[in-house]
Amino acid sequence: MKATLIHGERDIRLEEVPDPKIHAESDAIVRVVAACVCGSDLWPYRGISPTTDPHRIGHEFVGIVEEVGSAVANVHVGDFVIAPFYFCDNTCINCRNGVSTSCLNGGWWGSDDRNGEFVDAAQGERVRVPLADGTLVATPEVPTDALVPHLLTLADVMGTGHHAAVSSGVTKGSTVVVVGDGAVGLCAVLAAHRLGAARIVAMSRHADRQAIAREFGATDIVAERGDDGVAQVKELFNGIGADCVLECVGTKESMDQAIRSARPGGMVGYVGVPAGGPELPIGTLFGKNIGVRGGVAPVRGYIEELLPEVLSGALTPGRVFDLELPLSRVAEAYAAMDERRATKVLLKP
Amino acid sequence: MKATLIHGERDIRLEEVPDPKIHAESDAIVRVVAACVCGSDLWPYRGISPTTDPHRIGHEFVGIVEEVGSAVANVHVGDFVIAPFYFCDNTCINCRNGVSTSCLNGGWWGSDDRNGEFVDAAQGERVRVPLADGTLVATPEVPTDALVPHLLTLADVMGTGHHAAVSSGVTKGSTVVVVGDGAVGLCAVLAAHRLGAARIVAMSRHADRQAIAREFGATDIVAERGDDGVAQVKELFNGIGADCVLECVGTKESMDQAIRSARPGGMVGYVGVPAGGPELPIGTLFGKNIGVRGGVAPVRGYIEELLPEVLSGALTPGRVFDLELPLSRVAEAYAAMDERRATKVLLKP
Repeated sequence: MKATLIHGERDIRLEEVPDPKIHAESDAIVRVVAACVCGSDLWPYRGISPTTDPHRIGHEFVGIVEEVGSAVANVHVGDFVIAPFYFCDNTCINCRNGVSTSCLNGGWWGSDDRNGEFVDAAQGERVRVPLADGTLVATPEVPTDALVPHLLTLADVMGTGHHAAVSSGVTKGSTVVVVGDGAVGLCAVLAAHRLGAARIVAMSRHADRQAIAREFGATDIVAERGDDGVAQVKELFNGIGADCVLECVGTKESMDQAIRSARPGGMVGYVGVPAGGPELPIGTLFGKNIGVRGGVAPVRGYIEELLPEVLSGALTPGRVFDLELPLSRVAEAYAAMDERRATKVLLKP
Repeated sequence: MKATLIHGERDIRLEEVPDPKIHAESDAIVRVVAACVCGSDLWPYRGISPTTDPHRIGHEFVGIVEEVGSAVANVHVGDFVIAPFYFCDNTCINCRNGVSTSCLNGGWWGSDDRNGEFVDAAQGERVRVPLADGTLVATPEVPTDALVPHLLTLADVMGTGHHAAVSSGVTKGSTVVVVGDGAVGLCAVLAAHRLGAARIVAMSRHADRQAIAREFGATDIVAERGDDGVAQVKELFNGIGADCVLECVGTKESMDQAIRSARPGGMVGYVGVPAGGPELPIGTLFGKNIGVRGGVAPVRGYIEELLPEVLSGALTPGRVFDLELPLSRVAEAYAAMDERRATKVLLKP
């Protein structure tokens, strides 16, 4: 089959790789219907995290189950399934605690499972899914093509935006600032709106993304950054800042922006993969009682909560996809996101 | 009157200072009935935070109102009052948000108020209290001597321990680890117990403090630190760590211990004044979804909640005082705490 490998900085190739096979009785083989490129894929693409050896890449996909191991009970051949950006048993103590990204038996697409068997990454034609009963969520029926982009966001960006909102404690009436206008940031706006936030500031400098943010529920846009951005946010919120700040980028600058946008006693929910290793300034946090919570979003646990609203059309997170390409043009997909010609690119094998 | 000044490392002196006078109509003058030495007073005492000029010190006191300004309505001459370790109006937006330590009009004992007038510190005979209506809480009647130590803890350590517990989200059934067996750590044990924690590990190497921790509700004691301490905590909690970790020291080592003792998805509530500027390791926090929340405890807002249980005898946080000295021996009080001959020293002017 064909699958994507990253060979180094700005070097993405679609290559012939071995077809996946069932290795364990809890495995499933899924034919990928749609995959996509994540903002975090751009860290190795840009060389910010170095690539030492060529390896498979991509961690978001939906597809059709083609084969299941003998122990798989929850999904069946022919089912349309959503996979979170990791695999997990959904039964261990960490999964039960709602932190399936710390599953004791789980792992990451494109690396080995606990049996030492390679697990395919998502930007390819097929994926062997370990722990299929825990990992995959089947939709009640095979969805229309129009629903596919929305469902695909449940693999990562919508669940991750939701995690930022949940981690920062957004509830009915909260005042919210979202730092980052990538796909996750936009989904965080949608998630905050869904949870009842009274006012949502999207920090965005791009007109197209501002428009989606508005559509998703943003009440205000702040285009400034740094000191000016903080000043504008404070002015919008009684001079003190917002209850909840959703950090959806992962740089030192964005975290600084987030912390400074929170009111005393406020909370930063962060989901941007830390790039460049920003450490958190404990003195500032301590003095203002600003909390920081978040991390690798346990989206598996959010799929069931969000899925009905996606299926009904009440939630349309798939609006974040503004470019669709065949898998054969995966390199172009990376370039388009890198150069900000696209917010998020959907890939069809 | 007499009041305490710190002149430098291990140089504490009781000196003659001007009697306080009413400066604003919202002021009160309080005669100190009991004060004490805080763990955070030891940072300058030990020279960890340098003292450039001699200055007044101490921030915990209870006392009797001797005089009030013309605008003071909530407290009256003769009232027994508890003062939090700062002054605040209790009406501004930050106070209303529960973060009175960020009061827009507040400040700290031993420094200037917003009018530029000096405010006495607590280790002295009398204190001018700005914003007396917001700052002070009067008890229904003048308490017995036996109640005084318990009431004095509401000025700081009991409220601060409670803040650690609240910040880490302790609730009925939580598993809890408390890092630090000073007065705040012990009060954090008591607070976690009061909030319904199912299991509370006190990390303590001192038999006398272990005994108080047990009395306050600790179910387990871990004397080890570092890797061994983490291993023991994990063993007690399903191999993964505790739901809530209460950090009550403020050093890089204690914060590291706290973060490593939390389970994936757990929360560190921290109240130890950061000493030595430990920055928080965002990579570790992100990977395990461990949140960090806390800061300068807004104890003013907790006094009303905790006071009835102290008055009824249900809560006995004053057990943390294991030495009482006259104010004239304040230097000895510091030395006793510095050398760990006492957990917390009560001072009587």
